[in-house]
Amino acid sequence: MSKAKAQQHPGGMIMRQKEPVNLEMPFGSLDSFITPTERFYVRSHFPQPTIRSSAWRLKVQGAVDKPLSLTLRQLRAMPARTATVSMECAGNGRVFLEPQREGAQWEAGAVGNAEWTGVPLAAVLERAGLQRSALEVILEGADQGEAPKAPSPAGKIHYARSLPLAKAVDDVILAYQMNGEDLTAAHGFPVRAVVPGWYGTAAVKWLSRLIVTSEPYHGYFQSIDYSYWQREGASPSLIPITTGRVKAQIARPESAEVVPAGRTYRVHGAAWTSDAEIAQVEVSTDAGATWHKARLLGESTRNAWRLWEYSWAVPSKPGQTTLMARATDSKNRTQPAEHDEDHGSYLIHHWLPVAVTIR
Amino acid sequence: MSKAKAQQHPGGMIMRQKEPVNLEMPFGSLDSFITPTERFYVRSHFPQPTIRSSAWRLKVQGAVDKPLSLTLRQLRAMPARTATVSMECAGNGRVFLEPQREGAQWEAGAVGNAEWTGVPLAAVLERAGLQRSALEVILEGADQGEAPKAPSPAGKIHYARSLPLAKAVDDVILAYQMNGEDLTAAHGFPVRAVVPGWYGTAAVKWLSRLIVTSEPYHGYFQSIDYSYWQREGASPSLIPITTGRVKAQIARPESAEVVPAGRTYRVHGAAWTSDAEIAQVEVSTDAGATWHKARLLGESTRNAWRLWEYSWAVPSKPGQTTLMARATDSKNRTQPAEHDEDHGSYLIHHWLPVAVTIR
Repeated sequence: MSKAKAQQHPGGMIMRQKEPVNLEMPFGSLDSFITPTERFYVRSHFPQPTIRSSAWRLKVQGAVDKPLSLTLRQLRAMPARTATVSMECAGNGRVFLEPQREGAQWEAGAVGNAEWTGVPLAAVLERAGLQRSALEVILEGADQGEAPKAPSPAGKIHYARSLPLAKAVDDVILAYQMNGEDLTAAHGFPVRAVVPGWYGTAAVKWLSRLIVTSEPYHGYFQSIDYSYWQREGASPSLIPITTGRVKAQIARPESAEVVPAGRTYRVHGAAWTSDAEIAQVEVSTDAGATWHKARLLGESTRNAWRLWEYSWAVPSKPGQTTLMARATDSKNRTQPAEHDEDHGSYLIHHWLPVAVTIR
Repeated sequence: MSKAKAQQHPGGMIMRQKEPVNLEMPFGSLDSFITPTERFYVRSHFPQPTIRSSAWRLKVQGAVDKPLSLTLRQLRAMPARTATVSMECAGNGRVFLEPQREGAQWEAGAVGNAEWTGVPLAAVLERAGLQRSALEVILEGADQGEAPKAPSPAGKIHYARSLPLAKAVDDVILAYQMNGEDLTAAHGFPVRAVVPGWYGTAAVKWLSRLIVTSEPYHGYFQSIDYSYWQREGASPSLIPITTGRVKAQIARPESAEVVPAGRTYRVHGAAWTSDAEIAQVEVSTDAGATWHKARLLGESTRNAWRLWEYSWAVPSKPGQTTLMARATDSKNRTQPAEHDEDHGSYLIHHWLPVAVTIR
C-alpha cells in the first residue's frame, strides 16, 4: 500500500494545490524523528516570491527607537540558536471533516519536525529598541496577492501575522537554516519565522518586515482566515489561531491498508503538543471502544514531536476495523472524540480514524 | 414621481427582505425633522422575537460587583433621558456600489431621526458596580439564529455587539420609547440601545443582556460582519464599524424624476455626522463639476440629522443631468468622491448620484 502510494507520488509528496504550491508528506512514509526537508509540507498562500539574498533586507519598523534594515549578512552575523521544533498546518486533517470544508484537503501530512537555525527574534527587537507602547509584532512576508475570502481588503496584501510581545521576545527564531542547510525557496528563503508551539500560520516565510504595533492587529490571516470561535460564558468571540493542540497521528497502518491476520503489526506514529511534554499515547484498534498504551520512543524535546509505537496482535479472523490514536500531555490536555464545530476548518485534533482490512 | 412610488408601497415603506423583515423609507418622502415611527427603517438579522413585557428581564453580568436582573418596571422607574438621535444602517446606500455587493440592497432610506427616551446605560452599569477590569460592554439581543457567513460559530447565536467602556458610560440610552410612544416590536420592544453618533449596528434591539467583559470582544457582528479594513502604515487590520461618517443625502428630486425645465426646483434633503456639527452642505447639479452652498434648516442638534434645501434654477434646455450633495462637518471632515474599497459593503458616504430628466 505504501509502495503503491509512493508510486502515485514519485516526488514523495502529495500535491494539494499546484499554484500556489501546496504539498503534504504522505504520512505513512514517516520513518525518522527529523523530517527531511524534501518531505516537509509546503503551505503557500500566494505565488512564491523570488528573492536574491544580496537584495533582501529585514526591515524593523513601528514602535521602536531605531528602525532597522538588516542585510542577510548582518543577520547571520548575530548570535544564532538551533532548535528542533515541529510545525503543523492549522488545517491539517481537514479531509476528515464532514461535511467537507473549504480549503486545501489536507490528510495527515501537513506536519513536520525540523531542526531550525537562526537569530532569536528577541535579539533583533532588542537591537531596534522596543518603545514602551509596544504591544504586538507583525511578521510580514514578501509574498503577496488578493485575499480570497470576503470581506477582504482592497488590492493585494502581504501574508502577515502578529505575535503578542510576550511570545515575540520568548522563543521565536528568525530561521535561515532548516536541517543544517540554507532554507529552500519553498520553505521561505532567505528567512522565515519559527514560532515554537504555535500552528504554522505564524511561521511567516520570506520574512521581509517586522512592524511593532501599539494597537492590537487584526490582519486578514488572523481574523477572516486562521481564526476560530471561543465561548466563555458570553457570546462567541473570534480568536486568532495561536498555540497547537495536543495530537497523536498514526503513520502506519495507513487508511485502507491490508494488514495480515494473526500476526503482530507495528502501529507507529508521532505525537506533539504545545509548551508541555507528551505524557501518554494510546491506541485503539476497535474504533475507540478500548485503548492501549503505546511506547514513547527517544527523548522528549520541548515543542518537537515524539515518535511512538504499539505492537498490535492482529486478530486471526479477517474483516474490517478502525484504528485511532490519542495523546495526553503533561498539562493533562487530551484529544476530544469529536471535532469542535466552533473551530470551523481548523484545529482538527479529534480521534482520527484509520480504517483497515484484516486479511 | 413621488406619488407613483408611494403607490408602489402602500404601507409607505420599501421591502428589502420579507423574513426577517427589512424595510426602508422611500427617502423621497422626507418631509420632517423627526422621522415618523412607521417610516423609520427596520433592520433585522433574525426573526423578530415575541417578548411579553411582564416576562422580560435585563440581565447585567460579567465584571460587575452585583449582577442584576431588572424588570421593565424597575428600569422605567430609573431617571430617564430623552434625546433626538439619528440612526443610519452601516449598509445604507449599498445599491450604489459597483459591482453589486452581498447584503440588503439599501437605497437611501435606511436612515432616520427619532426622539428616544430611556435610561442612560451609565446608570444601569453604576447600579451593577463596574469592576476595575471592565473593558467593554456586550449588548445582547433576544433575537437569535444561525450566522450566515463563514466562518460562523456553531448553532444559533444572539445578535450582539460590544461597546468600549468609555462610550458605554458616555451617552448611550437604553430606550423604551421612540417618538413619545412605547417601542414597537419591529423597533425592539421593550428596550433597545441607542448609541449616538454610531451606525445602527450597535443599536441592539430586544435588549436582554449586558455582559461586562475584561477582554476585547470580537463577536460575529463586529468581525465577520459589520467590519472594515483600516490601514495605518501597516498591513490592513479588521476594525468593527463604530462611528458614523459625515453624509448628505438628497430626498428630492429622486432618481429618475422628471423636473420641469426653466423653473426653480427645491432640492432638499438631510445631512448628519458623528459628534460634530454639520458645517456646510453643498449641491452639484452637474455631476460634481461645480458645487453650490445649500441652506441649513432649523437648529443644530448633536447627533441628530439636519435638514437642508437648495433652490435650483433648472436649465430651460431639456436633457439629462446628475445631482449630488456633500456635507462637511465642524471637524472639517467631508465626503469622498469615490467609495473606499477597504470599507467593503459598508460606510457608503461618497457623493451619491441622483440622475434626473429635465423636460
